[in-house]
Amino acid sequence: MRMYDVIKKKRDGEALSAEEIRAFIEGYSKGEIPDYQAAALCMAIFFRGMSDEETTELTLAVRDSGERLDTSRIKGLRVDKHSTGGVGDKTSLVVAPIVASLGLTVAKMSGRGLGHTGGTIDKLEAIPGFCTGLAVSEFENIVNETGIAIVGQSATLAPADKMLYALRDVTATVDSMPLIASSIMGKKLAADDDCIVLDVKTGSGSFMKELEDSRTLAKLMVAIGKRAGKRISALITDMDRPLGYAVGNSLEVVEAIEALQGKGPEDLVELSLALASQILFLADKGTLEECRALAEDAITSGKALDTFAKMVKAQGGDPEYIYHPEKFATAPYSREVKVTQSGYIASVDTEKYGLASLLLGAGRNTKEDAIDLTAGYMIQKKTGDYVNAGDTLAVLYTSNASLLDAAERTLLNATTITAEAPEKRPLIFEVI
Amino acid sequence: MRMYDVIKKKRDGEALSAEEIRAFIEGYSKGEIPDYQAAALCMAIFFRGMSDEETTELTLAVRDSGERLDTSRIKGLRVDKHSTGGVGDKTSLVVAPIVASLGLTVAKMSGRGLGHTGGTIDKLEAIPGFCTGLAVSEFENIVNETGIAIVGQSATLAPADKMLYALRDVTATVDSMPLIASSIMGKKLAADDDCIVLDVKTGSGSFMKELEDSRTLAKLMVAIGKRAGKRISALITDMDRPLGYAVGNSLEVVEAIEALQGKGPEDLVELSLALASQILFLADKGTLEECRALAEDAITSGKALDTFAKMVKAQGGDPEYIYHPEKFATAPYSREVKVTQSGYIASVDTEKYGLASLLLGAGRNTKEDAIDLTAGYMIQKKTGDYVNAGDTLAVLYTSNASLLDAAERTLLNATTITAEAPEKRPLIFEVI
Repeated sequence: MRMYDVIKKKRDGEALSAEEIRAFIEGYSKGEIPDYQAAALCMAIFFRGMSDEETTELTLAVRDSGERLDTSRIKGLRVDKHSTGGVGDKTSLVVAPIVASLGLTVAKMSGRGLGHTGGTIDKLEAIPGFCTGLAVSEFENIVNETGIAIVGQSATLAPADKMLYALRDVTATVDSMPLIASSIMGKKLAADDDCIVLDVKTGSGSFMKELEDSRTLAKLMVAIGKRAGKRISALITDMDRPLGYAVGNSLEVVEAIEALQGKGPEDLVELSLALASQILFLADKGTLEECRALAEDAITSGKALDTFAKMVKAQGGDPEYIYHPEKFATAPYSREVKVTQSGYIASVDTEKYGLASLLLGAGRNTKEDAIDLTAGYMIQKKTGDYVNAGDTLAVLYTSNASLLDAAERTLLNATTITAEAPEKRPLIFEVI
Repeated sequence: MRMYDVIKKKRDGEALSAEEIRAFIEGYSKGEIPDYQAAALCMAIFFRGMSDEETTELTLAVRDSGERLDTSRIKGLRVDKHSTGGVGDKTSLVVAPIVASLGLTVAKMSGRGLGHTGGTIDKLEAIPGFCTGLAVSEFENIVNETGIAIVGQSATLAPADKMLYALRDVTATVDSMPLIASSIMGKKLAADDDCIVLDVKTGSGSFMKELEDSRTLAKLMVAIGKRAGKRISALITDMDRPLGYAVGNSLEVVEAIEALQGKGPEDLVELSLALASQILFLADKGTLEECRALAEDAITSGKALDTFAKMVKAQGGDPEYIYHPEKFATAPYSREVKVTQSGYIASVDTEKYGLASLLLGAGRNTKEDAIDLTAGYMIQKKTGDYVNAGDTLAVLYTSNASLLDAAERTLLNATTITAEAPEKRPLIFEVI
């Protein structure tokens, strides 16, 4: 097989065989296929697309490009929840303890923040002492003892995806459904969970701005998961505004703890319960209604919070922070961002809201950057709320006062205020 | 300007600006833009195409990527003829002496064989002593003294084209009209002739198999040339069968000499006169009919042959070979290829005919390969001819007897014999 022929075949609109797709991913991983041929193929895929069969083969090849978790040494039914990325999305910190407290196994490998979106691993590192870089044997032991552990993705997990993503990022070939789906699902399948619930975001803060695109991606990923023998479903959920009120690592952990204490913001709690119910349902814990009741009980009984605290302790963190979130350090500088006109908040550019958090120091510009874990903001008014000129829109927090101006400008510019109340968007659009 | 944005713009179907195109070619030539971004852009151009304006800008950027011939030191009206490449196409060796003998200046930079097609430089090197690698000052002196010189393209002529072509060749992005046209015309415009006649081939031995594609390419190249201020026209001519009877370097030189002696094969003579007339017409030597008469007279008077001999002498070759072509060495091994059935030669796969010549040693597999200058074959029967089983189709020549079998098989397989005579194809389809 010559890579030239593979490129030409896809360029001319033909479907690639499983062998051709595997040879591409294997050759590219080993450095035998050069970047320029991979770039040409990605662009051809951008224009010609891929069938579900091809996308599944690509996903499996990505999955197999590195080490896979040896699940034989992990007890119980392994479940996972994956989000396509959003602003203020701390549901993993709520959902994982709920389902683990109900007897399912969460052996989760999570990512760091990417672009304008936050990452679960960065958030967990806001808990003093919490270690996200465990050795495999330690990870397995904690999962087997507490039913839950969350670590960073190892460099050996689906390395082809890292290489390919870095290439797509500089060749304008990121926005391709089969490439997006195989990238996400390749990593997910490498973790080899039994049940997977996908949270596919839609709206201005999502990588998919349009509902139709989110639906296409969700269907494609569910199809891939099913072909790979997984129990899988997807929720399409709103990311046209941030989730909850907290944006920024330690601020979000505190809000997640509040949700586990039964006093979280409505949208965060509702989405967390919906995702947890879906996972429990896939894991045969009863009807959807019964699963919902189980999830609610995990919160009201305090079981989920206890499970979270246990995981924190097992991973080297201080569990006192979970029971007393007021212990979390707060940033030395803050500022109230005030609106200058009255009216309804008609819409927000949620991607820009995510960037405002980065501007305060909550994210990285390069992979090596340190994060200001206390940086971020608490939203006071959200889409649909009425504001009077002078009302506080959000309170900014940072360790570097010189960053406040740019973040304030960004938030205000990203907020549209009109005389009429906007139409209400659903939180959950559909289940696939 | 970020290369990422240029790729994305083209990917999304927008036209690139002159600045963007220049920045790409300049950055790529300098190694500042990596191959993988250039490959992604070429594939996006393959799918989205380019406007005539964009293609012209790309051509001019390619032209300007290296040194240009300093034409201020060359006397007279500079003319050139360029073929898109064919099998048995030795018209340059006939046309250039004709127009030079009529007072026009031919300061020609030619290429070597590419793929299944031959190259003028390889053919000229079959003349003992002939030097195709002159210093610039020597080249200029010979042109000014004899009115004609033909040298190989220097490495500094449009180097961006060489880099880009090598990349396209391995990323399945060769077959793109704007990329083909800008590659050919970028080199042509770097030579900065006043009048250019293009011979755009069509048919099974051409890079463009379909007449419609040849027409599109011809129109595009003429449009680019006109935008660049040149007098330019194009002939679309048949390459559904080899031109003349000789294929292979020294064999073709002999046939070209015969044409200059007034005893060449009809198709070669006809096409050479048509091309020469077009050049003379662009150079304001009269009406097309008058130009045709001038070209015919250059042959019958012997002026064109004398001019060829003068050039050969000036470039270090032995002019005795031109007046006595029987002096050319012949290959030590030969074989008559005989047809096994009777009927009309209905069609030949001319690309395979070209490969048969390579198989005998007349071309290179890698850039470094030496050429067997005596290798090739003389065709006896061409498309439309009636053959009886046992008739000789062609006589093969080579310095390596072990190559004969493969070449014989290739020629026979590439020849289709049927009971009915084929329709006659024109030699010249149209003038653009």
